[in-house]
Amino acid sequence: MTDLKSQISFFSSIRSHSIKSLLACIAVITLYAPLQARAYEDTVTKEVFEMPLFNTVGGQVIRSVRIGYESYGRLNAKADNAILICHFLTGTSHAAGKYQASDPQAGYWDSIIGNGKPIDTNKYFVLSSDTLVNLGVGDPHVVTTGPSSINPLTGRNYGLSFPIVTIQDFVRVQKALADKLGIKKFVLVMGASMGAMQAIEWATDYPEMVERIIPVTSSGFESNAYLIQTLHNWSYPIMMDPAWNHGDFYGKHPPTRGLSQALTEVTLSSRSPTWAQKLFANRIASEGQHPIQQWQNKYAIEETFAQAAEARSKISDANHFLYLVRAQQLFKAGNYADIQQAIERVQAKALFISAPSDLLFFPSYATSTVRALKEADKSARQIELVGSGGNLDGITEIESVADEIRNFIEH
Amino acid sequence: MTDLKSQISFFSSIRSHSIKSLLACIAVITLYAPLQARAYEDTVTKEVFEMPLFNTVGGQVIRSVRIGYESYGRLNAKADNAILICHFLTGTSHAAGKYQASDPQAGYWDSIIGNGKPIDTNKYFVLSSDTLVNLGVGDPHVVTTGPSSINPLTGRNYGLSFPIVTIQDFVRVQKALADKLGIKKFVLVMGASMGAMQAIEWATDYPEMVERIIPVTSSGFESNAYLIQTLHNWSYPIMMDPAWNHGDFYGKHPPTRGLSQALTEVTLSSRSPTWAQKLFANRIASEGQHPIQQWQNKYAIEETFAQAAEARSKISDANHFLYLVRAQQLFKAGNYADIQQAIERVQAKALFISAPSDLLFFPSYATSTVRALKEADKSARQIELVGSGGNLDGITEIESVADEIRNFIEH
Repeated sequence: MTDLKSQISFFSSIRSHSIKSLLACIAVITLYAPLQARAYEDTVTKEVFEMPLFNTVGGQVIRSVRIGYESYGRLNAKADNAILICHFLTGTSHAAGKYQASDPQAGYWDSIIGNGKPIDTNKYFVLSSDTLVNLGVGDPHVVTTGPSSINPLTGRNYGLSFPIVTIQDFVRVQKALADKLGIKKFVLVMGASMGAMQAIEWATDYPEMVERIIPVTSSGFESNAYLIQTLHNWSYPIMMDPAWNHGDFYGKHPPTRGLSQALTEVTLSSRSPTWAQKLFANRIASEGQHPIQQWQNKYAIEETFAQAAEARSKISDANHFLYLVRAQQLFKAGNYADIQQAIERVQAKALFISAPSDLLFFPSYATSTVRALKEADKSARQIELVGSGGNLDGITEIESVADEIRNFIEH
Repeated sequence: MTDLKSQISFFSSIRSHSIKSLLACIAVITLYAPLQARAYEDTVTKEVFEMPLFNTVGGQVIRSVRIGYESYGRLNAKADNAILICHFLTGTSHAAGKYQASDPQAGYWDSIIGNGKPIDTNKYFVLSSDTLVNLGVGDPHVVTTGPSSINPLTGRNYGLSFPIVTIQDFVRVQKALADKLGIKKFVLVMGASMGAMQAIEWATDYPEMVERIIPVTSSGFESNAYLIQTLHNWSYPIMMDPAWNHGDFYGKHPPTRGLSQALTEVTLSSRSPTWAQKLFANRIASEGQHPIQQWQNKYAIEETFAQAAEARSKISDANHFLYLVRAQQLFKAGNYADIQQAIERVQAKALFISAPSDLLFFPSYATSTVRALKEADKSARQIELVGSGGNLDGITEIESVADEIRNFIEH
């Protein structure tokens, strides 16, 4: 994810059928990270936060937790101008800016984070951290702890012996980081998809620390049955890949094939029919090789998705993917028997931003959550961004609601 | 699919958590075939139609094609009162009635086909045939020809040497059957999902023979990119299963695990978040075995889907599944370079019935198809049935638009 040029050259080497499908290749991999001039002007540095011992929600212990984080802007003397950005399944802490001026692209929400932007780094100290079990372990800018890490007690990679972790665990690590940085409260906690889960978890677990939340493309306060099964289906190709070997593949051939298909399924779920039709329609992958003739002949969308996912799989870890799937299946803010107890705890004002064509975190999920918050006398409303590209519009089209975000933060 | 009692007993033997989840088990397998008193009163007999030689659209030859069909009502002397019903991916020719009075359930559209029903068997001769490569080769009432069949030239199962077939091939076989029965034209051709593709193919290929079509939960005149990739994802678990062995598994252990997961994915795509949430929410599969504790612990929806799909896989063929996937990916009515040419050929009046929560054949597909037909001065309109259960509402909730169907046929 750090070198757009090499991605472009990778994809240029593929038999490319049109500029559109070339763009699509890149898009799938980079999740359409905005290519416009970056808003955050200072150079970003990756920092590392360490915890010698971390107790999981599930009752286990992880030693030597290391998590990467970055920040934009400065914490003020009162330590009351902080904003926390939480990332999505395939994301990292790189929400804005560049590590060096020559980086081909900036962080994923650079369009709304920076000097003079809605999340104004002249005013706010914006913090963003890699989650536990972050997917991109092969990205040199990601620092995370998960099944690919070395268990200090055995000297070997954890594999499936790594404790199952939850969104609440992600948030507890972030809380420890905030404590270490001296942050007393957050003006805002914001995130998309899995990041929205973390924002809601924050408002539930530490209500006195969170003034506002912006859950973008949100599940609401817990994962529902359809999402649980969708996540199950994503994880299946990995577990079917013999190379996965019940999670014990470190130092051997990793389950690239299964992980690639998993990422392909994530991409489809994260997009929309309108988006796919514009880029691919029913064009075939290679002229003269029609799918009516041979089993191996493909449509353009099949080939492009497979190639993009395979490239992405090279910096990703299959076990981390499974742990992220389980964390999202388990999501239940505050982990209360009744979700109403979680809702009652919230003190933050909430702005839910939905993507109208989202087929993963359907806009109706936010609608019913806002209704439940209002019925509990909480401040909550829902707006829709402008786009027809599905769930990933929450990343790529966030600028379409820039004014609403600015107003929400300032009032 | 022929013995509901054994299914119920199968599922009763599973640790069942509630009546709801038990019902859900049955529902997934039987696709909620209506359990009300059947409308078609005569006993249904399965007939077999044979073609010594069939030339596929792809330019290959299939010898000794055998296809099952059934009919309800009588063909009149003029042979002009026929109606054709085309089935969906997991369906068969059993659209109405019972094979014997003791059958626990009737055909899948029995609620609208029968004496005095909208598709009135007192007036019409209703014909329904198994497609080529029908999924349910282990169902004793299904007769089909596909990769599981014996190639008369080799004496062995075809496997992947069976020619790739298309929706247009399905329709050509139906046309040959209609010719043999002396049917001169169809008052109506109707089908859901893959069946809707066949109805549109009929109106395109044999416009002078088709007075009306009712495409239920329809793709329109061709498959789009999102559908093509969804179908690809469904087929992936089969091809990842080592037992699939590139289609050569006859006489060996079949790829039950991959086929079960494929059917699981079909079920999820065919349903909706509302449906799933009502039946399963985020209940866990087994008390005391929470998914936060162990990798193998499951949610109720995961376990129920897996068990139902495994049961269904036992009467299904993995290669046939792949061929049905490819046939739907290839769907392009009339196979013209420009879909406008297909639309221009249509003479039939068209009533598109959409399921409002359909996430597979989105209602917007029918909307744009109706618009295109109208722009070409064709008679077309769209109605929505009542339901929140996703694509399968096209089967289970069809009675909610019974009056509209009756009016459409009578006028």
